[in-house]
Amino acid sequence: MEKIRIGILGYGNLGRGVELSVAQNPDMVLAGVFTRRDPALLTLQTPGAAAYHIDKAVQMQDAIDVLILCGGSATDLPVQTPEFTRYFNTVDSFDTHANIPGHYSTVDAIAKASDKVSVISVGWDPGMFSLNRMYAGAVLPNGKDYTFWGKGVSQGHSDAIRRIDGVQDARQYTIPVQQALDAVRSGGQPELTTREKHTRECFVVAKAGADLKKIEEEIKTMPKYFADYDTTVHFISQQELDEKHSGIPHGGFVIHTGVTGKNLEHHHVIEYSLTLESNPEFTASVLVAYARAAYRLAKEGSYGAKTVLDIPPAYLSAKSGAELRAELL
Amino acid sequence: MEKIRIGILGYGNLGRGVELSVAQNPDMVLAGVFTRRDPALLTLQTPGAAAYHIDKAVQMQDAIDVLILCGGSATDLPVQTPEFTRYFNTVDSFDTHANIPGHYSTVDAIAKASDKVSVISVGWDPGMFSLNRMYAGAVLPNGKDYTFWGKGVSQGHSDAIRRIDGVQDARQYTIPVQQALDAVRSGGQPELTTREKHTRECFVVAKAGADLKKIEEEIKTMPKYFADYDTTVHFISQQELDEKHSGIPHGGFVIHTGVTGKNLEHHHVIEYSLTLESNPEFTASVLVAYARAAYRLAKEGSYGAKTVLDIPPAYLSAKSGAELRAELL
Repeated sequence: MEKIRIGILGYGNLGRGVELSVAQNPDMVLAGVFTRRDPALLTLQTPGAAAYHIDKAVQMQDAIDVLILCGGSATDLPVQTPEFTRYFNTVDSFDTHANIPGHYSTVDAIAKASDKVSVISVGWDPGMFSLNRMYAGAVLPNGKDYTFWGKGVSQGHSDAIRRIDGVQDARQYTIPVQQALDAVRSGGQPELTTREKHTRECFVVAKAGADLKKIEEEIKTMPKYFADYDTTVHFISQQELDEKHSGIPHGGFVIHTGVTGKNLEHHHVIEYSLTLESNPEFTASVLVAYARAAYRLAKEGSYGAKTVLDIPPAYLSAKSGAELRAELL
Repeated sequence: MEKIRIGILGYGNLGRGVELSVAQNPDMVLAGVFTRRDPALLTLQTPGAAAYHIDKAVQMQDAIDVLILCGGSATDLPVQTPEFTRYFNTVDSFDTHANIPGHYSTVDAIAKASDKVSVISVGWDPGMFSLNRMYAGAVLPNGKDYTFWGKGVSQGHSDAIRRIDGVQDARQYTIPVQQALDAVRSGGQPELTTREKHTRECFVVAKAGADLKKIEEEIKTMPKYFADYDTTVHFISQQELDEKHSGIPHGGFVIHTGVTGKNLEHHHVIEYSLTLESNPEFTASVLVAYARAAYRLAKEGSYGAKTVLDIPPAYLSAKSGAELRAELL
């Protein structure tokens, strides 16, 4: 079997997750990891695989079928996806929702001009959650969908707390409100405010002598991040934080309710949920499945930018169409 | 806007559901209902639409973009889908899992020879459940999926009870076992027997003077249908059956658990569930969304048999790619 040769650009939590996921897929092989750091400092987990400086990537383009871009959406991907799609089929996890249309247009033009495929905005939201919003809305157009996130760690919110004076370390959990979930599931299609949908729980390690009241007040009133939510703050020791809050769990719910019938009398609830013990490793697993799709789309000459909404489900699977029809349909 | 002209073949619960669903989709119009009965006996719910005898269908082929086949899987669809795909793009809900590969091959050859698209085995299982089994398995290949059905009415099991001597009417509910659902969600990947996954609850109206003990015994020991399950039988009046059990609710769960990480230490749960107040109307809604996809596939010349696994999600939606990226991704 000819294996799909995967390159990884960026070796943080997501890049390491991609490496582990590639190892779970027998039709794939890791062709190299590219980093802006000194590659000698990386310790890969894949026997025989090597790390290279990012500047070496382009000269290795014939050794790589799909390059998975594992940088961040704020500053890395807006530059890297257009740049590397000139030379590689690419997959990224660009997740700044408001900027997706612009990112798509930029990458699409480059991909088409370069005879490459680029699957953008892959992961679970955008990604698996988007798929579920779309399928549910197409099947029950007289309906409404709701997305809840959590319980899970928000890195952005944890970072925001860490920047407060007197804070040594912090971890923030986003938690969906059970009452809101129940109201949505009942099919009533409620209008829910930001505060009604999610709460935020913060575990904070204060520096010695810090003013705890002031830290708590600063967190709870922080605009955008916390002010619109009911926020709970717990001060704990660094040891407790390390012991009980070192994981990166996440997840959430996409719930669509809709009606059918002559008098719209029949209610239906479609619910999709994820409970993830490792957010980056799950996101990486989605990226890897879409790398398989990118490889196939490139083989058939379907060049351009794609999203999860454009790609036939079967392209993600290592199984043949006949196997899928016999085993899974 | 040019509307998609839908034909309906067969006017039982499913056909009536398709008619109602077409009315919810502004980009579609009902072009005709075809029946083996006397068309004068049908009362359609769509102003301006007409019913025709099935023998008239072929001569109306230029007036119909997609014909939705609403017959049963046992005897109707194995004949009708091949036959009508010679003249129409078709969508069917063929759900005899074991015979899907054969049905696919037959229909694929005819569709390709006739420059037609036929989307087979559409609905929720096979259909939306298949999609979820496939996506989850592709993302977490080191995992296992479980499908539970219910709580919902099984027509086949209800019919089986009605055939028992002394039974006037009956309704059977398939119910997933909560303990089994919980065990699966825990990520432990248990092996579950038929009896451990579902129970069956029967509401039976006995004829006057019938031997209730004997009826109950006959139900509980019926091979294939009930013998492998814990079955409960309640005898009630016809009035109570009509009042409390006249709906056709159904639904179920597809749960996939899988592991990632260097030592496979991170567990993930992907869960998809449906709670449907009308099984036929929901199934019909899925058929109609895939009729839109069939129309588009035919326009682009992608002829042949297709399943939900082959079709890009965006083809189901009335929205454009740009709208979907901006609103849903």
